[in-house]
Amino acid sequence: MQTQLTLFHHPLCPHSRFARFVLREYGLPVRQIGERVWERREEFLVLNPAGTTPVLVVEGRPPVPGASIIAEYLDELYGRSLGDGRLLPLDFDARIEVRRLMHWFNDKFFEEVSGPVMAERYKRHMPLDAGGGSADYARLDAARQNIGYHIAYLDLLLGGRVWIAGAQLSYADLAAAAHLSTTDYLGALPWTESGAAKAWYARLQSRPAFQSVLADGWRGFVHP
Amino acid sequence: MQTQLTLFHHPLCPHSRFARFVLREYGLPVRQIGERVWERREEFLVLNPAGTTPVLVVEGRPPVPGASIIAEYLDELYGRSLGDGRLLPLDFDARIEVRRLMHWFNDKFFEEVSGPVMAERYKRHMPLDAGGGSADYARLDAARQNIGYHIAYLDLLLGGRVWIAGAQLSYADLAAAAHLSTTDYLGALPWTESGAAKAWYARLQSRPAFQSVLADGWRGFVHP
Repeated sequence: MQTQLTLFHHPLCPHSRFARFVLREYGLPVRQIGERVWERREEFLVLNPAGTTPVLVVEGRPPVPGASIIAEYLDELYGRSLGDGRLLPLDFDARIEVRRLMHWFNDKFFEEVSGPVMAERYKRHMPLDAGGGSADYARLDAARQNIGYHIAYLDLLLGGRVWIAGAQLSYADLAAAAHLSTTDYLGALPWTESGAAKAWYARLQSRPAFQSVLADGWRGFVHP
Repeated sequence: MQTQLTLFHHPLCPHSRFARFVLREYGLPVRQIGERVWERREEFLVLNPAGTTPVLVVEGRPPVPGASIIAEYLDELYGRSLGDGRLLPLDFDARIEVRRLMHWFNDKFFEEVSGPVMAERYKRHMPLDAGGGSADYARLDAARQNIGYHIAYLDLLLGGRVWIAGAQLSYADLAAAAHLSTTDYLGALPWTESGAAKAWYARLQSRPAFQSVLADGWRGFVHP
């Protein structure tokens, strides 16, 4: 019998989107529950005292909070099922590169770009007394200006690689795609026409896992 | 023959301190090189394009950047050598809790407390044209105010546990200790006399790994 998986997420949260890409790449069916973290719902804080999305709940197990912990956990539990297409490769050196780039997007890109974008987008949905209101455009401008060098870095990496961490699709690609796709609020991403990043992103977008998450839209947002 | 290990670090960087605690708990001798990240030294950026400490270089292997990637890597390579005292336990559920709390301190506590403290302390050592100068005391005050609830959370966890993630010392304790010990700049930590956190911290401080790192002071700072 299939284990019941539940993901607490938010459609505008890039870390949630990463977890959704990953779960679909594993082919794991998951019940999705939309969480408005700014409400600081008590039952949610019990699952994750840090109060952040995503949180994966695997029946009969302690809740798994955060993008990278979910990635490590799913690899340990289901990695073998992907055979040679394992999203965190077994080779020691390859693991360093996949984790380095997964953290690049989940931490650095989030701090410089997708975090501010997410925070400013949340404001539209938040009540005024919880910090909601109109977006801080100066902050969004600063985030926009940071995107360029990340795209240039992707172009550099993809100059000699098929996927960003090497010859195979990995968690690194899914993290990059999750954060890039949630920054659409800032308008078109500054792809360079000659760069390899644009073609890589198109390849990712054509994957069924990617398409099904994008097709969800706000339908995935079922609030408890 | 022992593999040659080199750690690029900074004495004021809590993530570097975490890596140093971990390496000494494994009993691994390491050559330490002090890195002033604000100088953006080209040879260092080749090792870690993100430009942050710590970076672990294992002879003949790609460089390993960042606290959590170093922790995962050392567990995979040397974890077995610690037997039952493994810093990342083998049990699936226990791994979630260790990683959750390791990230709590390396990410959340860093964002709210030790990151601002580190940034403001760096200013003393940085030239004026690189952003050096006197500390921003309002920012340090805000960081100080954030410490209290983290100590309360430690008290809560340690109410029912010997170490913060369970019955055994783990990466979680070493991350917490690293970040707490580098916030000394803000004055005495607000321990509650009745709380369990104070006794836990004293136990950590008495460990040889901890003492040898603290004894280093700036002696570990050998600039290339």
